[in-house]
Amino acid sequence: MKLIAVGTVAFDAIETPFGKTDKILGGAATYIGLAAASMNIPVHLVSVIGGDFPQEYLDMMTDKGINVDGVEMIKEGKTFFWSGRYHNDLNSRDTLATELNVLENFDPKIPASAQDAEILLLGNLHPAVQLSVLEKMEKRPKLVVLDTMNFWMDHTWDLLMEMITKTDVISINDEEARQLSGEYSLVKAAKKIHEMGPQFVIIKKGEHGAILFHKGRIFAIPALPLEEVFDPTGAGDTFAGGFVSYLAKKGDFSFENMKAALIAGSAMASFTVEKFGTERLVEITEKDIVKRVNDFKELTTFDVVL
Amino acid sequence: MKLIAVGTVAFDAIETPFGKTDKILGGAATYIGLAAASMNIPVHLVSVIGGDFPQEYLDMMTDKGINVDGVEMIKEGKTFFWSGRYHNDLNSRDTLATELNVLENFDPKIPASAQDAEILLLGNLHPAVQLSVLEKMEKRPKLVVLDTMNFWMDHTWDLLMEMITKTDVISINDEEARQLSGEYSLVKAAKKIHEMGPQFVIIKKGEHGAILFHKGRIFAIPALPLEEVFDPTGAGDTFAGGFVSYLAKKGDFSFENMKAALIAGSAMASFTVEKFGTERLVEITEKDIVKRVNDFKELTTFDVVL
Repeated sequence: MKLIAVGTVAFDAIETPFGKTDKILGGAATYIGLAAASMNIPVHLVSVIGGDFPQEYLDMMTDKGINVDGVEMIKEGKTFFWSGRYHNDLNSRDTLATELNVLENFDPKIPASAQDAEILLLGNLHPAVQLSVLEKMEKRPKLVVLDTMNFWMDHTWDLLMEMITKTDVISINDEEARQLSGEYSLVKAAKKIHEMGPQFVIIKKGEHGAILFHKGRIFAIPALPLEEVFDPTGAGDTFAGGFVSYLAKKGDFSFENMKAALIAGSAMASFTVEKFGTERLVEITEKDIVKRVNDFKELTTFDVVL
Repeated sequence: MKLIAVGTVAFDAIETPFGKTDKILGGAATYIGLAAASMNIPVHLVSVIGGDFPQEYLDMMTDKGINVDGVEMIKEGKTFFWSGRYHNDLNSRDTLATELNVLENFDPKIPASAQDAEILLLGNLHPAVQLSVLEKMEKRPKLVVLDTMNFWMDHTWDLLMEMITKTDVISINDEEARQLSGEYSLVKAAKKIHEMGPQFVIIKKGEHGAILFHKGRIFAIPALPLEEVFDPTGAGDTFAGGFVSYLAKKGDFSFENMKAALIAGSAMASFTVEKFGTERLVEITEKDIVKRVNDFKELTTFDVVL
């Protein structure tokens, strides 16, 4: 199956307790594209960049099989820039700068070659932009996967609700699930979110793993315990990219296959955090992913006989 | 195998967002004993109570097959009392009262009939008391399992270190593991704690599950997602009791069997939180546990083919 992913292609400047970077390649769509590429899944990115975006980054993506026809360059504009500093525990961070630049007036263009994509992944963006993408698809993709965040709940509630109504799979973190539903219990939160539209609710819990809810069924996984988390930037986007890539590979949207996709996504995200930005993700191959998935099996397999 | 468990038998008064109790039956040894009883494992409790402790509670335990010969009654004293109020998220609580009473001079007595127990579970107590129990055992039990908490790290570090040196399995929460080791990464924390003595390190993460570490091997489980947590009191003690009971049942201290024991303990703890205090735990049978363990399998089983 073919993927289309809409999101940011950006510059990030990151500080962690282990060091800091200059402006490096970042953005949700970038991580999603690289995750798909590592699984050899055809993926079209839809995004916007400024004239300051290096051609070598676009070439790198193209070389990996990522289709960037939908990445519009606005020559006179500047690329979206985010800068942040992680705290010592790497679970929280301060945003030092957010320069929207060309993202401010992002008007996604869907290339004709991407119109037949079966899976649409809407990265974390203004819900009006996400809705406009759906409208621009000539026919609704078979599966619409939505990433969003608390900011849109605070500021664009009605538009976000409209978007969620049209969503098959929503991927949010535990605090966002609680805010969206008004329920503390994640089981109750997922039920309420199901009622809003999505048949599948993924709740991400960072170092504590993730939970998938579907019509009263639940699948939960721990995160792979890592000796060192170097830089968490992009972990959530890599997870989403790995998740949809596994679905695209199998062409199967059953609960059983979604479970496997959750593992694949988590395995891929566990690579991203090992180095700064996309450094680690660009290196990995399907063979590395298979090995990490086996680590997950080892981590979680048990046999109780009572 | 036979179990011996040392810990509190107490009165608790609990407030949660769902209601409050008068003085009800509580204490770590109580939960441990009831967990063992629900799996039909012979267990000896070693504890101390005051003259105010109702005979009917002791009779209830005896009826369930719990040996209370090691529960010393000090007629002129009062039973240990704890009172607490949980916050709305049920993940944190304020202690309203702690009356040590007879616990203040607790001098554990090991009944002759318990001297041949193969597994010793040392509940959360002053490390000097825990050490004295080990000294009073005529021969060292095959497996020594230790529960402790940050309070003893703050106030009795040297004694706690001496106790940990003599421990096979230590069970603590994530914050305690970080405090004990000085490492934020739980993988690194477990390595340091291994170096202190314990061959097995269990790190409990409440609603996020638990992790078992053993010589570079790791097993992680999510908690069973519950629609409603009614009262978390005793969940950790039930977990410990279920864990050692499964080990006692199988007579097997391998990593593989410890993994299964972690599941059994978690399954049992998931019952305890459904009602106030021991209300739910006293009801359950091995059949209920089997059902809940199957829920865990359902929750965590996946098949990824790449």
